[in-house]
Amino acid sequence: MKPISIADTAAYLRNCRDAYILIHRSPDGDCIGSGYSLQAVLRQLGIRSRVLCADPIPPRFGFLLPDEEEEEFTPQCIISVDVADEKLFGDLEKLYRGRVNLCIDHHISNLGYADRLLLEGDSAAACEVLYKVYREMGVTFTRQIAMCLYTGMATDTGCFKFSNTTPNTHIFAAELMREFPDIRYDLINREMFDVKSPSRLRAEMIMLSNMEYHLNHKVTIVWATLDVCHSNGVDEKDMEGLTSLGLQPEGVEVGITVREREAGVYKISMRSARDVNVSAICQKFGGGGHIKAAGCQLEGTREEIRDRLLAAVEGAL
Amino acid sequence: MKPISIADTAAYLRNCRDAYILIHRSPDGDCIGSGYSLQAVLRQLGIRSRVLCADPIPPRFGFLLPDEEEEEFTPQCIISVDVADEKLFGDLEKLYRGRVNLCIDHHISNLGYADRLLLEGDSAAACEVLYKVYREMGVTFTRQIAMCLYTGMATDTGCFKFSNTTPNTHIFAAELMREFPDIRYDLINREMFDVKSPSRLRAEMIMLSNMEYHLNHKVTIVWATLDVCHSNGVDEKDMEGLTSLGLQPEGVEVGITVREREAGVYKISMRSARDVNVSAICQKFGGGGHIKAAGCQLEGTREEIRDRLLAAVEGAL
Repeated sequence: MKPISIADTAAYLRNCRDAYILIHRSPDGDCIGSGYSLQAVLRQLGIRSRVLCADPIPPRFGFLLPDEEEEEFTPQCIISVDVADEKLFGDLEKLYRGRVNLCIDHHISNLGYADRLLLEGDSAAACEVLYKVYREMGVTFTRQIAMCLYTGMATDTGCFKFSNTTPNTHIFAAELMREFPDIRYDLINREMFDVKSPSRLRAEMIMLSNMEYHLNHKVTIVWATLDVCHSNGVDEKDMEGLTSLGLQPEGVEVGITVREREAGVYKISMRSARDVNVSAICQKFGGGGHIKAAGCQLEGTREEIRDRLLAAVEGAL
Repeated sequence: MKPISIADTAAYLRNCRDAYILIHRSPDGDCIGSGYSLQAVLRQLGIRSRVLCADPIPPRFGFLLPDEEEEEFTPQCIISVDVADEKLFGDLEKLYRGRVNLCIDHHISNLGYADRLLLEGDSAAACEVLYKVYREMGVTFTRQIAMCLYTGMATDTGCFKFSNTTPNTHIFAAELMREFPDIRYDLINREMFDVKSPSRLRAEMIMLSNMEYHLNHKVTIVWATLDVCHSNGVDEKDMEGLTSLGLQPEGVEVGITVREREAGVYKISMRSARDVNVSAICQKFGGGGHIKAAGCQLEGTREEIRDRLLAAVEGAL
């Protein structure tokens, strides 16, 4: 693996041909925006490319896709965007492991699996990195490229809310808005942040109505047991990404969601509001993650699990 | 009333003395950020000032306030910020009506009640206007001024989410982040957007659990009747500002909240997701508002009110 610069990446892209662009499984706004903006940029240069993903693109991202797909072809080069680890290719891993010529990413955890790696760990999103690459290439931005880049930066930062937001994220958003004032950024944001599926709304109901408060209201626990999920028509998977709701009540430092996988087997997700290192807590139980977002798996009765979790969190508060 | 420019405003502020700064009742992030940043700027110039508000500043904005308040003095000039109408002075109206020397605002609905008016209707927030004024004045930005301005711009745009967000909003946020990289913008955003009081959380529960779907799932109605509110320990006022939750389910165009004021008297709040003009609908019932956010009052039985509302909305879909 060779680390390369923005300029090297621009030169590589200008000279590549017949590219497959790989994005990660469970695709989100950033990898979709990265993949499809890159496809549009390459098309502008007369270079054929296809975006490949192990999972289908969720319908709400449909507005980022091109009107027509490129026909099948044999790739001459493989590029991955926003993929830190080949495992995240999902079912495509077996086909492309060890074959990636260029990776463009912003995850400091990137495993360096590609021949060439453009890694900007300070960037909020892969789309923020690609914005710089496209400017270096002197590409003409189109409405679709602008929507892709804005969506990627907005979704990875919670609409410019999280600590990964950089001055560049704001400046690039401003430049896109200046160049394309008619794009309805507000409707993109509504679609990305405010609109929810019926099952997601029911899952939020479970979160709000089952919240337990512990340790002087500094810790919340929500139990998504099999019976609670079934009786609300919610899949255990619908609860994914909702753990941060446990941090909403005033004064809470740690929010915990306990999802029952099968009888007596629980997947724990933990979020920290400020400075508690939940990764260290989850490591005690054989799990791990980031400082503010981590997880682990536990078995036992509800009471046992509650006691073990609270004892560990109490020590860290 | 004389409309004045950024430069005129800067000159006026440099030469004023002993100023009272009035902000609107029910103070929000933008008027608080405007008022206290202006006080800090004037203090830098050796000019005494006090921020006056009819209502107390909510505790979550405490981090924007100066360490010590100025002692009482008789004002030589009265400045209002982010106040479109003297009525919004609340209990301070009787003291200061007709006495405002300078108003700085971004509401196009500003009534022009002050001697001098700096109005920038395209700005997302009064703090966005003041940012330009302070730069014109050549003020040295401090950490407190930066936090005030960021908070005002972030809160008035829903964290850069709404259609009022301008390229300048993003650029000014970027410049503040560059100049003060150690401010925890993410914690400000968490406090402003994610942290909720227990009664607010219970009110959201009411919203989610009482949602009715009508007209092909394009319209939601939530009934906050007196008995529903009482049995959940929620004041009818806690439901304020929650109407937009009715727009969360996929495909909804109009969200309606019906709050029972007293038996049989209902306050209606209506929100539009995209293009339905809810102001026109509410005008039919003697109310009004903005295109995407309006209200009115109705009396009658629940069934009568539902029928009248749905008939009016159906015509507009």
